[in-house]
Amino acid sequence: MEKIKVGILGATGMVGQNYIKLLKNHPWFEISYLAASENSANKTYEQAVRGRWQMDTPLEDKIKKIIVGNVSDISKAKGKCRFVFSAFEISDKEQIRKIENEYAKNDIPVVSNASAHRKTKDVPMLIPEINPEHLDIIKIQQKNNGWNKGFVAVKPNCSLQSYLTAVYALMQKGYKVKKMFISTLQALSGAGYPGVASLDICDNVLPFISGEEEKSEQEPLKILGEIKDNKFENFQGLEISAHCNRVPVVDGHLACVSLLFGDKKPKKQEIKKIWKNFKALPQKLDLPFAPKQPIIYNKEENRPQPRKDRDNDKGMALTVGRLRQCNIFDIRFSALSHNTIRGAAGGGILNAELLVKKGYIK
Amino acid sequence: MEKIKVGILGATGMVGQNYIKLLKNHPWFEISYLAASENSANKTYEQAVRGRWQMDTPLEDKIKKIIVGNVSDISKAKGKCRFVFSAFEISDKEQIRKIENEYAKNDIPVVSNASAHRKTKDVPMLIPEINPEHLDIIKIQQKNNGWNKGFVAVKPNCSLQSYLTAVYALMQKGYKVKKMFISTLQALSGAGYPGVASLDICDNVLPFISGEEEKSEQEPLKILGEIKDNKFENFQGLEISAHCNRVPVVDGHLACVSLLFGDKKPKKQEIKKIWKNFKALPQKLDLPFAPKQPIIYNKEENRPQPRKDRDNDKGMALTVGRLRQCNIFDIRFSALSHNTIRGAAGGGILNAELLVKKGYIK
Amino acid sequence: MEKIKVGILGATGMVGQNYIKLLKNHPWFEISYLAASENSANKTYEQAVRGRWQMDTPLEDKIKKIIVGNVSDISKAKGKCRFVFSAFEISDKEQIRKIENEYAKNDIPVVSNASAHRKTKDVPMLIPEINPEHLDIIKIQQKNNGWNKGFVAVKPNCSLQSYLTAVYALMQKGYKVKKMFISTLQALSGAGYPGVASLDICDNVLPFISGEEEKSEQEPLKILGEIKDNKFENFQGLEISAHCNRVPVVDGHLACVSLLFGDKKPKKQEIKKIWKNFKALPQKLDLPFAPKQPIIYNKEENRPQPRKDRDNDKGMALTVGRLRQCNIFDIRFSALSHNTIRGAAGGGILNAELLVKKGYIK
Amino acid sequence: MEKIKVGILGATGMVGQNYIKLLKNHPWFEISYLAASENSANKTYEQAVRGRWQMDTPLEDKIKKIIVGNVSDISKAKGKCRFVFSAFEISDKEQIRKIENEYAKNDIPVVSNASAHRKTKDVPMLIPEINPEHLDIIKIQQKNNGWNKGFVAVKPNCSLQSYLTAVYALMQKGYKVKKMFISTLQALSGAGYPGVASLDICDNVLPFISGEEEKSEQEPLKILGEIKDNKFENFQGLEISAHCNRVPVVDGHLACVSLLFGDKKPKKQEIKKIWKNFKALPQKLDLPFAPKQPIIYNKEENRPQPRKDRDNDKGMALTVGRLRQCNIFDIRFSALSHNTIRGAAGGGILNAELLVKKGYIK
Repeated sequence: MEKIKVGILGATGMVGQNYIKLLKNHPWFEISYLAASENSANKTYEQAVRGRWQMDTPLEDKIKKIIVGNVSDISKAKGKCRFVFSAFEISDKEQIRKIENEYAKNDIPVVSNASAHRKTKDVPMLIPEINPEHLDIIKIQQKNNGWNKGFVAVKPNCSLQSYLTAVYALMQKGYKVKKMFISTLQALSGAGYPGVASLDICDNVLPFISGEEEKSEQEPLKILGEIKDNKFENFQGLEISAHCNRVPVVDGHLACVSLLFGDKKPKKQEIKKIWKNFKALPQKLDLPFAPKQPIIYNKEENRPQPRKDRDNDKGMALTVGRLRQCNIFDIRFSALSHNTIRGAAGGGILNAELLVKKGYIK
Repeated sequence: MEKIKVGILGATGMVGQNYIKLLKNHPWFEISYLAASENSANKTYEQAVRGRWQMDTPLEDKIKKIIVGNVSDISKAKGKCRFVFSAFEISDKEQIRKIENEYAKNDIPVVSNASAHRKTKDVPMLIPEINPEHLDIIKIQQKNNGWNKGFVAVKPNCSLQSYLTAVYALMQKGYKVKKMFISTLQALSGAGYPGVASLDICDNVLPFISGEEEKSEQEPLKILGEIKDNKFENFQGLEISAHCNRVPVVDGHLACVSLLFGDKKPKKQEIKKIWKNFKALPQKLDLPFAPKQPIIYNKEENRPQPRKDRDNDKGMALTVGRLRQCNIFDIRFSALSHNTIRGAAGGGILNAELLVKKGYIK
Repeated sequence: MEKIKVGILGATGMVGQNYIKLLKNHPWFEISYLAASENSANKTYEQAVRGRWQMDTPLEDKIKKIIVGNVSDISKAKGKCRFVFSAFEISDKEQIRKIENEYAKNDIPVVSNASAHRKTKDVPMLIPEINPEHLDIIKIQQKNNGWNKGFVAVKPNCSLQSYLTAVYALMQKGYKVKKMFISTLQALSGAGYPGVASLDICDNVLPFISGEEEKSEQEPLKILGEIKDNKFENFQGLEISAHCNRVPVVDGHLACVSLLFGDKKPKKQEIKKIWKNFKALPQKLDLPFAPKQPIIYNKEENRPQPRKDRDNDKGMALTVGRLRQCNIFDIRFSALSHNTIRGAAGGGILNAELLVKKGYIK
Repeated sequence: MEKIKVGILGATGMVGQNYIKLLKNHPWFEISYLAASENSANKTYEQAVRGRWQMDTPLEDKIKKIIVGNVSDISKAKGKCRFVFSAFEISDKEQIRKIENEYAKNDIPVVSNASAHRKTKDVPMLIPEINPEHLDIIKIQQKNNGWNKGFVAVKPNCSLQSYLTAVYALMQKGYKVKKMFISTLQALSGAGYPGVASLDICDNVLPFISGEEEKSEQEPLKILGEIKDNKFENFQGLEISAHCNRVPVVDGHLACVSLLFGDKKPKKQEIKKIWKNFKALPQKLDLPFAPKQPIIYNKEENRPQPRKDRDNDKGMALTVGRLRQCNIFDIRFSALSHNTIRGAAGGGILNAELLVKKGYIK
């Protein structure tokens, strides 16, 4: 079977580099196009990332030689790739939306990591284990915009992926979650490069991450929501409060979670059983990047830990631990996932795999 | 005025070393006696801590030469010191209680950092800004035990000192607090020496600290409680839930706090004003180790931070920040204090100053 | 082909755990026997390492269930494994020597990581890329001790493996090295577990590692030496001076190296060419753990770096960089290798592979 | 006595902030003028450093309110301050030289931390314990430039201050040093703010600091040199080779030093005695920032350490340890100083104190 040719927008940034690292030897996808800002355009990728390649694996020769395109010049992308990963790290959301739309308009689907389109009412925000049925919106999106084969699909913030699937697994079994307190200890790589200055985090932690608490409190409501009247309607009845902290850890976002259930409350053993047995569509379809067991419960009293658990199932599994009664709500636990794999490039690849398998990318 | 001679039990451990560091040049107290386990007994203090002195200031010559006593041999302490700081780090609480009682019985008051006596119904657990009236129990304690001039007074766990005074300041103004969610990011020095192995915390955080969540949830209820029928009765009507994490920071415990008030709810401006104006007995008595302003509000969006705020007012002030509405409860904020100063040796010294000023140590 | 059954002595320590991690899916070897001290004996391996498993990969089920033997009871090992890896971390060298000899005497070859036998005159200290011909001593060793099939072979200190092969590659091409200055920045994992206390290394570095400078200065002379009169004779004419420092890095020892050559001095381009083309016996024999390219030169101005280069070629390659003129000697450069892979368990496995291929383990 | 009014150029950067922190309560000096680039000009200092104040002590009220001047507009400085500290961190040396000269021309002496004028043949590069007689060049400098009361005096690179005074102390006693090998482990604060990205140094060290090795090898030759024919002539006969590394430490540069002496070689006991007894002009003049004992020998086997020794004598003393024979040269040791105090702002203040005492600043 011939591999599907893919492009990466924002290829020189940290997320773009992670896509390049993770797509090496992908069974379905093959990188054929790399685009970045004007500064990098027309250089080889090797030149463009000189002194900025942050991955712990060397750059492959065939990637080094690719001539970087200008993201704004779509003519270079057409015919070169069947779809693109959008890995922009710039802060101008309006600009990102414009570029992503332009690719979609030109029949190039966009699988995006950027936050620009997360609130767009006809753009699906996917966690394939939770809301694959949200893909139904794509036809509406195409119709709304007058697009033919192109569309935009996004993934949510990296931080909430550390725990939301574990919470969803319980909801899916009929245990309504009414309130959720979250405190996070988030890794440095979540801030991109150069990101956090070392003087700000050596012998220190930071009690603030710009915009992160808002995303953590709002995005789950769309993910858990449903399509009504041709647009997404937020999930009702779940209140979320998040404290987000930065800690001196390279990769892996850890969260402390407390849950209040509705009237029907699961016992601890039942919860562990639900997590252990949880499988969803990506597992059933046996997608290449799908973790075999999406939720791993580690019974040691001091786990999960970022350095020791982030790489579980190639960084795509969520690890939970310390399930215990909560003095105020019902239960509490700690949860962790790899923010640049599950929470970013790996999650984007899984989204793309689902889109291919479901026939949205042809 | 002649200085009061003091002894330190458990003088060779981390807490003991901190007492020695902080008592240097104390205007009222002078170290005259150091005691430790049999291993260290009869050595000079310099020999006893060789290779184990962890402080960032050199050991003073006059301390170096003190011959370390055996904690179990009280005859050596009698006449040498008016009271002792108990800085034991051993885990055998029964043994600590026995030793502390023995000193009290021998007319040597014990100002303790150890957790052994924290639950004892006639032993006060002091935060001088919160519950100085708990000292009234001492006469009952002496009567109960048949002691003459000796007694035991303790301080609570280091972690809760990062936020409890800030919460108490609001309660004192009539804003009842019904529920409190806490997540902590605690420093390495809280675990003593050698404590946390570097391989467990380099590029990592730990979601568990043995016994810490229980202490954080129970001790405030005694501190906020009152004396009834000659013993302490826990405060009623406050529920606390704590997640405790260890982070790679040398000193300074940070806490994320969410509060639910009763019917009367303060506005943000009112809270900031209460904190700014909060003064208590240690400030009124102008005790040497009392912070001038016990609660400092830092208005920068990313504060408090351990490395930058732990030393405020010589490590005795609590720094708070990020006061904002909570999606589930009423308000939330971050709070920090220096765990080995305010939370340990400095707090113990402040307790002793209060006990002297109030006439309990003569 | 049936796999060769192997045992691990000291299986519960850090080095032992690394052997277990690295031997997973080894094409030639299969773990069949695990032994440790009396404390762990007769427990399952899972029980024996409960709370102490430090690897970032989960323990395999088949390893979990192995009943740990007592290292001193060789009867349990006989027939169970063809050879053993000795991964002792205890400090009593005399005891290690005794145990290792006992296995050798019982026809079980010992491939050792321990330092106990490194100075023994008829025990080879192997870096397979440098001195495979030192295996010739094994027959003499067996004769000296009256052993039949058993023997002891050791690997050198982890630190010197970061640079010695790069230096040897030049010597092999006829460029005599007369003097070598080394300064190391060594990783935490080199000290075992619990090893370095976090309070000693957070916001800190340590200018001292016990015994490390002596090993760095003496062991290369044996490795580069030759067999004369049935025993090893040290290499003459190379003076080494080493400063060894500990830094807060999980894995990967970095060294700053300055070399003074004899009369024949290589140019920088020549050196880079020699390193690039260097292949030795492990590469020729295509041993499973042999790096394809043993010495990788990274031309970026700020490399090698521990986190980014330690995993090169699965942690078995040495990475060098910053080759430049030295103001006092001739040239200087930085060099790095993974201390627990190349420098410990991975190096031990490569030694065993060579011993199998050369017929010493049958 | 009225305090001398001083200004700070580059007041908003890290070095400038350190000057402000250290000059608090200085017995002779009082900050009266702060200048920075156009961006900060005409703002209050509080506004100008909002979100960028890196010190661990709060900003004083009287400093907060100072209106920041534009460094290029000297008219605002004239009459406001008797001299200025130059704390520029910009990389354009030509621009710095121009500005510093302009202040000097306007009768405002410049005590500089910047490297711009370090190589200028009539500008003294001072370490007051080593070369106070270099101040004699100032009259020549003034004459060369046609300046009246103004002049420029600089301090050397922060890194070499960790060891050069200890080496000089031996030279001063007649022990010629012929060759010196240096390897440094340098702190993050040496790179300014934001400086090193946390992702580059978490679980990592960097084997390269731009320009640092050149400075370490060349600047000592000027410092140890003498004035001949009205300009500085480098010291002859000392060869230096430096490897410079960055480590995850907030403050404190550590160096590993190996020395080759001329024919006259000191014994270890003699060296320790020389260091212990070393006093120089700043000590004799009892300058406020002069350390009482400039060179402290710590006899513990694992010292000096950055976190534990950098604050010795308020960060102005140099701490040495691990004195031992070198296998190649004669002796070796480790040395440390606080890079932002002794090596930057504190060193600058000591220079200014000497200049005042010697009558150059009136």
